[in-house]
Parts: sequence; C-alpha cells; structure tokens
Amino acid sequence: MTRIVQKYGGSSVATVERIAHVAERVKASHDQGHQVVVVVSAMQGETDRLLGLAKQIERHPDPRELDVLLATGEQVTIALLAITLRKLGCPARSYTGAQVHILTDSAYNKARIMGVDAHRIEADLEAGRIVVVAGFQGVDEHGDITTLGRGGSDTTAVALATALKAGECQICTDVDGVYTTDPRVVGQARRLARLTYEEMLEMASLGSKVLQIRSVEFASKYNIPVRVLSSFTPGEGTLITGEEEGMEQAHIAGIAFNRDEAKLTILGVPDRPGVAYHILGPIADKGIEIDMIVQNVGQDGTTDFTFTVHRNDYDNALSVLRHVAKDVQAREVSGDEKIVKISLVGVGMRSHAGIASRMFEALAKEGINIRMISTSEIKISVVIDEKYLELGVRALHTAFDLDQPQG
Amino acid sequence: MTRIVQKYGGSSVATVERIAHVAERVKASHDQGHQVVVVVSAMQGETDRLLGLAKQIERHPDPRELDVLLATGEQVTIALLAITLRKLGCPARSYTGAQVHILTDSAYNKARIMGVDAHRIEADLEAGRIVVVAGFQGVDEHGDITTLGRGGSDTTAVALATALKAGECQICTDVDGVYTTDPRVVGQARRLARLTYEEMLEMASLGSKVLQIRSVEFASKYNIPVRVLSSFTPGEGTLITGEEEGMEQAHIAGIAFNRDEAKLTILGVPDRPGVAYHILGPIADKGIEIDMIVQNVGQDGTTDFTFTVHRNDYDNALSVLRHVAKDVQAREVSGDEKIVKISLVGVGMRSHAGIASRMFEALAKEGINIRMISTSEIKISVVIDEKYLELGVRALHTAFDLDQPQG
Repeated sequence: MTRIVQKYGGSSVATVERIAHVAERVKASHDQGHQVVVVVSAMQGETDRLLGLAKQIERHPDPRELDVLLATGEQVTIALLAITLRKLGCPARSYTGAQVHILTDSAYNKARIMGVDAHRIEADLEAGRIVVVAGFQGVDEHGDITTLGRGGSDTTAVALATALKAGECQICTDVDGVYTTDPRVVGQARRLARLTYEEMLEMASLGSKVLQIRSVEFASKYNIPVRVLSSFTPGEGTLITGEEEGMEQAHIAGIAFNRDEAKLTILGVPDRPGVAYHILGPIADKGIEIDMIVQNVGQDGTTDFTFTVHRNDYDNALSVLRHVAKDVQAREVSGDEKIVKISLVGVGMRSHAGIASRMFEALAKEGINIRMISTSEIKISVVIDEKYLELGVRALHTAFDLDQPQG
Repeated sequence: MTRIVQKYGGSSVATVERIAHVAERVKASHDQGHQVVVVVSAMQGETDRLLGLAKQIERHPDPRELDVLLATGEQVTIALLAITLRKLGCPARSYTGAQVHILTDSAYNKARIMGVDAHRIEADLEAGRIVVVAGFQGVDEHGDITTLGRGGSDTTAVALATALKAGECQICTDVDGVYTTDPRVVGQARRLARLTYEEMLEMASLGSKVLQIRSVEFASKYNIPVRVLSSFTPGEGTLITGEEEGMEQAHIAGIAFNRDEAKLTILGVPDRPGVAYHILGPIADKGIEIDMIVQNVGQDGTTDFTFTVHRNDYDNALSVLRHVAKDVQAREVSGDEKIVKISLVGVGMRSHAGIASRMFEALAKEGINIRMISTSEIKISVVIDEKYLELGVRALHTAFDLDQPQG
C-alpha cells in the first residue's frame, strides 16, 4: 500500500464525462489498495469565465475579492468529482483549501504555501476514504481565501504529498510525460523515463509547460518523487526525482525552446560601475521581466548590453530603453523581435566536456547564425533567428542522439 | 446611525449590471452613515446550472457534496459585489458562510442555523467597512459546508440581523412590498404599509411567495423588524413587525390563494381511534406534504376524511389512498385536482365577529360553491373550483374594503 497524491488539471476535468473518467482512474488506484488524495483544478474555461465577470466590472479587481471569486472554480470540481466517486461506491470526501488548512501568506492571487495541516486528511485516509482537495487555493492566517496563481494546483499537490509523506505525487495531464523536445517540431522526440528536478526546472522554465516551476522547486526541496503522466492514456509517464548516486546520466536530457522572446541591445554605453543597474532598473520598474542578459566589452571603454524580454513587452521595453540611452550616454539602441531561444538541458553536461562546441558545430552545419549565448551549469542557451527554430531544434536533437530509443 | 442588514435575491444580482445597481444602493445606505451588512443569493440561474451539472452525474447526488457545489453560487456573488463596491470607493469585504461562522446542524441541503459568531463582522462594521455575506450557506460543527435550502438567504439575513442586533432587516426583492392580494388577479390590489409576523406567515405559506417562511419565524422569535422592498424602485415597502399594543388593525390584511392544490377524499371510513393516522401515515411516508385536513362525521358510525396536497403529488397520493382504503375498510375514494384555495388573513379577525359569514356571503353572491372550509385564529381558508379563482378573489377583495386606500 502506497500513499499517492494525484493531480488532475483543467482539461482532465473539463466536462462531467471527463470527470467520470478521472473518477474511474482514482477508483482503480484505490481498489489497488493505495491511499489516494486527489487534487483538482477548475474545469477548463471556468477560471477565465470568472475572471471575465470580474473584468466586466473593473479592470483591476480588488485582489482579495478576486481570490474569493476564483476559488469557486476548484470548489465546483471537487464536489462533482466526489459526487461521481460516491456514485461508483467509493467513500470520497471533498475539501476546499481552507477546510484542510492549506495555510498561505496573504499575497492574494499569487500566495505561497506556508504549511498544511494534514490532520483531517490523515484521519480520512486511515478510515479508507478517498480525499478530494481543491487545488490552487488556500487560506491565510486571518481566515481569508487566497489563490496560488495559475498552475498553482501542481504546487498544492506537491505540498500535500510532502505533508502526508506520500510515496509519489502524480501530475496527470494532457501529455503522457516529458519529452526530449516538442514532438510537434521533432517527430522523433521521445518521452523521457526519468529526469532530475534541476533538469525539469530548466525544461519547464524554457517553455515545456508541463509542470509549474514552483511545484518542482517544492518537490526538490522535500525530495518528493513527481510523476508526470497522461490523464487519458495508460503509461508510466516521466518520473522526476533527485539525482541518485551512480545513476547513469544521459549527456543531454532534452531541448527546450521559446518562441516568445524578443531581443534588445544598447550599444556603446560608457563602461562604469552601476551601468547594468541604470539600464535594467527602469525596465524592471515597468514590470517587464528580463530573461537572458549578455554584456560584452566593446571598444573605446564602452560596453554593449543585450537582453531578452517577452515578445509582448518588446515595444514597451524599447521605448524605456530609448530614454535610458540618453541618460547613460549610449551610442544607439537596437532590437529584434524575430528571435527564438533554444536550450540544451542535462545534468550530464556538467561532467562531459565538449557539449557546447558540439552544439555550435551542429548549428553551424545548417548555416544557423548564433546571435547570443548564455550558459549555466546544466544548460546552454542560444538565441537565433526565428526562421531557423525548427531546423535548429531538429539538428540538435539528432546531434545529441536524442532520436534513438533510450538505452 | 442604524445598523442595517440588506438582502438581495437572485434576480437582483442576475447580471454584473444589476450587481452595479445593488452596489449603488448599498453605497447610498453607507453614505447615509448606516452600518451595512449585505446578504446575497446566487446569480439567477446559477444554482440551477450547478444542480444541472450534479444531476448529469447522478440523479440523487451525495448531499454533503451537493452543498459543497451549491455554496459556490453565492460565493461568486459576494466577490463580484465586493469588487463593485471597492470600485465605487467603498471599503467592502466579502465572507462565505463558513468564514463568519454561520453555524448550522449537519442536515445537508436543508440545514438549520444554530448560531452566528458576529465577532468579525462587528469589527469590520466598527472600522467603517461594508460587510458582504453569502446567503443560503453555513458550516457545521465539523467544518463541513452546509446549505439552508431554497430561499435560505432570507434566513441568513434575519439570523445576521439578530446576532448583530440590527435595527432592521431589509429584504430587497422583485416586488415593492406585500400586497393585499396578487395584483395580476385584482387590479386594485394595494401594497400594505405594515403587517404582523403572523399575518406574513399566513400570507407567505398560502402562496404570496415574497419571503421564506422560516425567516419570518426567525424574525418573529427574536422580534427583528423586517422590511420587504423593491431592489429596483424607491419606496418604503412593507414593514413586518410584532403586534404592537394600541396598533390599529385592519380587519383583514389580505387575501392569499394557491393554485397548486388538489383534493382527495376517503368516504365511509369506520370511525375508530387512530383512523387519521392510518390514512395519513402512508401518505407522509411517501414524502407527500399535506396542507388542509378536514374530517366530518358521516352516517352509520363512519367518517369522511378530506385533505389537500400539492397538485404534482395528486396521482401518487391517489394511488396510496386506494391501497389505504382497503386496509381501513373505507367505502370509496374520490379526488379533484381542479381546485384552488383562497384564504382571508388578518390579525384583526380575532376581535371582529362575522368575518366568516361575510366571506361566505360574498362568495355565495357570485354563485361560488365552497367545497372545504378550514379556519385558524387569523385566517379562514376555503377550497373552491379552480374556474372561480379570479372571481372569488376579486369579490372578497371588494367585500372587505381592500380596494380602498389604507386609512
């Protein structure tokens, strides 16, 4: 008997028919003798519907009240799933985040989980019940309803798995696991059987939107095994764990990419202390998030400074940068919103030399010009022209033997 | 400064536009210096939508889980109203039933309020805030969500008014008060300025569906003044209070009627102790509610027994009664589903003789045959053929001077 937390996202519970399917899966786990806690999101479209109602009233609704509103989405799903499970003869009970004391800070709309009082859930599990918990939501120390922000249900699931010392946290979703890269771009993309938390973090943050980043950080911190698997088809999915000693690592786990980037450069900035702050401070003040940053020393004691932002923020960032350019006496400002970022990710690259050169060689062979490079311990990212995205990803997928079945 | 509880029903908050209108009204009360607590129902249609989802899954959904589901309806409304109030610059805060500890028993779907912990609301009111509370819902001693059943928001409002020692509980609804009778039947029907709890109970239970009966009982028990008024048009509405000494009572407050009745008679039942129980027990066992009951002594030591049920239950009740007839050795069973009930209601009738005879005279003048009569301290009800409903109500409205403006 294992204690399992299973999370089902919005598309897995989009209709009562899909909820019935989820109930069958939950029942199967329960029938196998497992203790099962199920975390569910709002039915697909419901959160947007509620948000739409609020936005009809006010463009920036009061954050506390918005959370009271949005929290109803998951509450509907827990009730419908529990009703379905009871119809199947399973002793199920649903709880809101507040009812099982998913304690968060008071940062409405993006609250962080501080702790979970698993007391009541433990009692239900010991009594043989299936426990259904609303994802995405919690309660602060004043008893006010909070939400964790989009994708927060993954974090709820991991937090519950931690508090309940569960053997595994299963994230059931639209895809049957984490792939070496996007199968829509590379037909030979393969499902990975296993991945480390660090690799998953890099894959997720770089655009493979399978798991919420915070939930992976959380799982990593408490060493909870997370399994990504399909809600709809059988299969083992992808198991995400800490790095185990003696674990044979592939050089490269996968190739992530991001189409939503734009690049801005400020050229000929007099190079003195604090210049990075003077350039990026005003960008951050506008609430624009910066991804890659590269600084090169230029000629005549000046420096060139390039960074990437989300493509939606490009115009805004460009106009800020033009103002900044005058203040810091830069020579000129340029930008490009037709770029993409491709990243090689793999814990194995730490201990294997030559990964970077092999990457650059593969791209060069296809005539792809690299516009920016940035590296970290387990990833190498390059920025290239948008039109080369598919070609580049396919070339790298082949160059690093990811087309072959895993040994 | 008065402390006021205002309740708005589902049609008053049916759209974000109507919620905006409600917010303006609440703001006006707050601007006048009142301490305002607002109780709201689910947006019109929302409870039925949720119930529909549950019924798609299971004809008889688990009662506990159904309450988890239905409680989201009011939670959406409190958030939207609070967002609107904050947009208008009013310091508003919303609470679910659980958050303000509207403690109920555990009778899911039809829970009864045991108490309210007004602590948090008091603090908000003293701080100058408007408090918005979800009607219809509460929480039991285990922390499980409960609902009070249809119309329960009225009871929530009265319970809050009681706990907060409010000066008045305002029920804001589709109509601008309680009328002498249904204006669709009698054009001259007048709004009553004032009514006693007892009169309101008789008017409500007899078909003038303005206020939930339980809320009136509650208000009567704790002597909370209740005012029924329109959400949409200005006006004083109808004030419902206890009977005051020296209060000038009209003979008759109004005329209620009910089209949804059907009549069943069991004839020639040997008259022995327990016969009423033997006849009505099996009816009640089927969950059929009985309204009027009349028993007459017949001939040869037998008795005739007539009662009315909701028209929807007629076929069912008739089939039960045919079985019962054999057991109790009755002579025959008959029934009629084309009947209606008309009732005169008024505290004043206690001290004024001749009301009944005047009533029967008015009906006789129009050639209306009375099929059943039942009386209580403050009402007289008659059952007549359905076709005479309008004629009968109009005749009585005139005979008791209800057409005239109140003196």
